[in-house]
Amino acid sequence: MLEFKVINRDTRTKARAGFMQTDHGTIKTPVFMPVGTRGSVKAVEQRELLEMNAQIILGNTYHLFQRPGVDALQKFGGMHSFISWPRPILTDSGGFQILSLSDLRKLSPDGVEFRSHLDGATYFFTPEKTIEVERQIGADIIMVLDECAPYPAEKEYVSKSIELTHNWAMRCKERFETSQPLYNYNQYLFGIVQGGMYLDMRERSAKELVAADFDGYAIGGLAVGEPAEEMYNVTDFVTAILPEEKPRYLMGVGTPENLLEAIERGIDMFDCVMPTRNGRNAQVFTTEGTINIKNAVYKFEESPLCANCDCYTCKNFSKAYLRHLFNVDEILGLQLASLHNLRFFINLMEQTRLAITEGRFVEFKSENLTRLKNKKIMEEF
Amino acid sequence: MLEFKVINRDTRTKARAGFMQTDHGTIKTPVFMPVGTRGSVKAVEQRELLEMNAQIILGNTYHLFQRPGVDALQKFGGMHSFISWPRPILTDSGGFQILSLSDLRKLSPDGVEFRSHLDGATYFFTPEKTIEVERQIGADIIMVLDECAPYPAEKEYVSKSIELTHNWAMRCKERFETSQPLYNYNQYLFGIVQGGMYLDMRERSAKELVAADFDGYAIGGLAVGEPAEEMYNVTDFVTAILPEEKPRYLMGVGTPENLLEAIERGIDMFDCVMPTRNGRNAQVFTTEGTINIKNAVYKFEESPLCANCDCYTCKNFSKAYLRHLFNVDEILGLQLASLHNLRFFINLMEQTRLAITEGRFVEFKSENLTRLKNKKIMEEF
Repeated sequence: MLEFKVINRDTRTKARAGFMQTDHGTIKTPVFMPVGTRGSVKAVEQRELLEMNAQIILGNTYHLFQRPGVDALQKFGGMHSFISWPRPILTDSGGFQILSLSDLRKLSPDGVEFRSHLDGATYFFTPEKTIEVERQIGADIIMVLDECAPYPAEKEYVSKSIELTHNWAMRCKERFETSQPLYNYNQYLFGIVQGGMYLDMRERSAKELVAADFDGYAIGGLAVGEPAEEMYNVTDFVTAILPEEKPRYLMGVGTPENLLEAIERGIDMFDCVMPTRNGRNAQVFTTEGTINIKNAVYKFEESPLCANCDCYTCKNFSKAYLRHLFNVDEILGLQLASLHNLRFFINLMEQTRLAITEGRFVEFKSENLTRLKNKKIMEEF
Repeated sequence: MLEFKVINRDTRTKARAGFMQTDHGTIKTPVFMPVGTRGSVKAVEQRELLEMNAQIILGNTYHLFQRPGVDALQKFGGMHSFISWPRPILTDSGGFQILSLSDLRKLSPDGVEFRSHLDGATYFFTPEKTIEVERQIGADIIMVLDECAPYPAEKEYVSKSIELTHNWAMRCKERFETSQPLYNYNQYLFGIVQGGMYLDMRERSAKELVAADFDGYAIGGLAVGEPAEEMYNVTDFVTAILPEEKPRYLMGVGTPENLLEAIERGIDMFDCVMPTRNGRNAQVFTTEGTINIKNAVYKFEESPLCANCDCYTCKNFSKAYLRHLFNVDEILGLQLASLHNLRFFINLMEQTRLAITEGRFVEFKSENLTRLKNKKIMEEF
């Protein structure tokens, strides 16, 4: 069983600070996990992830299975060694890819058939196959195979979807428990609560998974297009059902605001491509909201992207230089903006954790939300 | 006057080891200068350039003039500060751009009119304007405005071209001597020997420039498509005319082989986009020749790009991981390959310098050329 301890609980909300122990190190929560779908957090070096205090990164089972392939990963003794990443890794199972590759897959009760967008080859992923591949990849935390329903979805569709998802979760757990890690460290299995925006479906999904006793619980099927309020309501509802003593992971979320709202509702773990994707598109996160660094107002601006940020970008470069790099299409712009955005998210989690442990989460959240909503007025010019 | 000292001369060839002193630090020669045309060495961070011991980098006057513009550069106190680079910088004048932008420029005796490929605006660069802009950019070493003749070129064209180039060089020198640096450090002016492949033209150009006493001398108009032997012959011929006590810079060159051959013929300084451009195209330099890291033979290869290389890439990552990164189009692949290739060139210069000081340049060169020509046989599969 994954060792997870909540060390501080906010008295006014469900926010909590804790840590979990993996064989690749301790993860302090709340935690933001940078996404390295194909074995690289886009445009950021592994040593830079260490430097910015990324505690754990994500990989994607479906993508890594295709390339580099489990044969290469096994030759290297797993993904940590293949990508030279010493800290924990979590692999998503590919459930979200079932949603997003809807033209290239066929669902059946037994699993999902993917048609590779690379060479047209088909792969059939059963729940058992998923666990087998996740053993071969060797992440510390692995996710069950699930179906992530689209938004909006009819209740009848969602009902069938969570039945399928539950059935797959049980089969994943069975295979997980009757198999061993291939490498010299433990792996832990998380269940994924689905149910769309229907609270009774969410209740059923959560209760069934809790009964099966997973190492942790993810909430899937949110941040798929629904209003933020609906995401918060579902999150709040589900965390009330999940056990206090297990980590809770809100998949694919989100903005800094989303993170603070979800932490208030009892979430411990997050992942999102937003910091790197937005970084590559010149969208920079700051404590005063997001800015478009290509904006002409920054032509002469000597200040860093974000005052007080301790990242390499902010400690060395001006907004004017970043703007220039994007203007002339230099790759270094993507690198520096991605690096900063990731550090911004990680730092936000560190500050949030501190606020929780010091009993001032509510004030911290309120101050931050006010500032984050202040889009820079100078950009209006 | 730029302080330049030759500290060791090879007794069997014209190879030499020396150093030059700028206000941003000492440059040990022979030196390879990474190219940062627009104020960034492509896909490599400034701290990585420091780490790999890049002693000096290049910028381009014409490109930097357009973007970020001299107003932004002046606001920051020059290019060093704008790009956060503490060591020396050299700016090329734009002479090579006159060649490569042939549809977008008009030559006249008084200078060159560029039509911007960005917005169609026209800029007229006289020799005086070039020096003025190079003062505003603030590189430690600045180049005169020249015309780089195409290859092949009629002798009559080349004759007129070197007349123009000489006239411009004198006007650059005049303006340089009657103006002051804008920032708190010295700048030095290099002349550029032209003359195409005609030795009598090269002789005339070199002698006229030497008579005018520049801080250093570049050889331009080579590596423009001529056979390597012709490049070596012209280089050998020109360095025999250039003064022993001034640094010699072979512009835009070249492969590792080219560098060793040119050092043998008395060259001290090089720049080339090859390490970064090839790196972005999966072409990796190794002591055994270049390899295409996308090659399927590397799928399981645990060794680094280059045994004994001390760069971040080689100390942490396998060929298999690099191959994977290029295969899945991850930006990190470009970063890691560019970084390695640059370190390879810089290390080659460091080793060459050591060999010169230890009196074994000829043996060192011969061993290296033999190995460099060994394209990896395994790649043939």
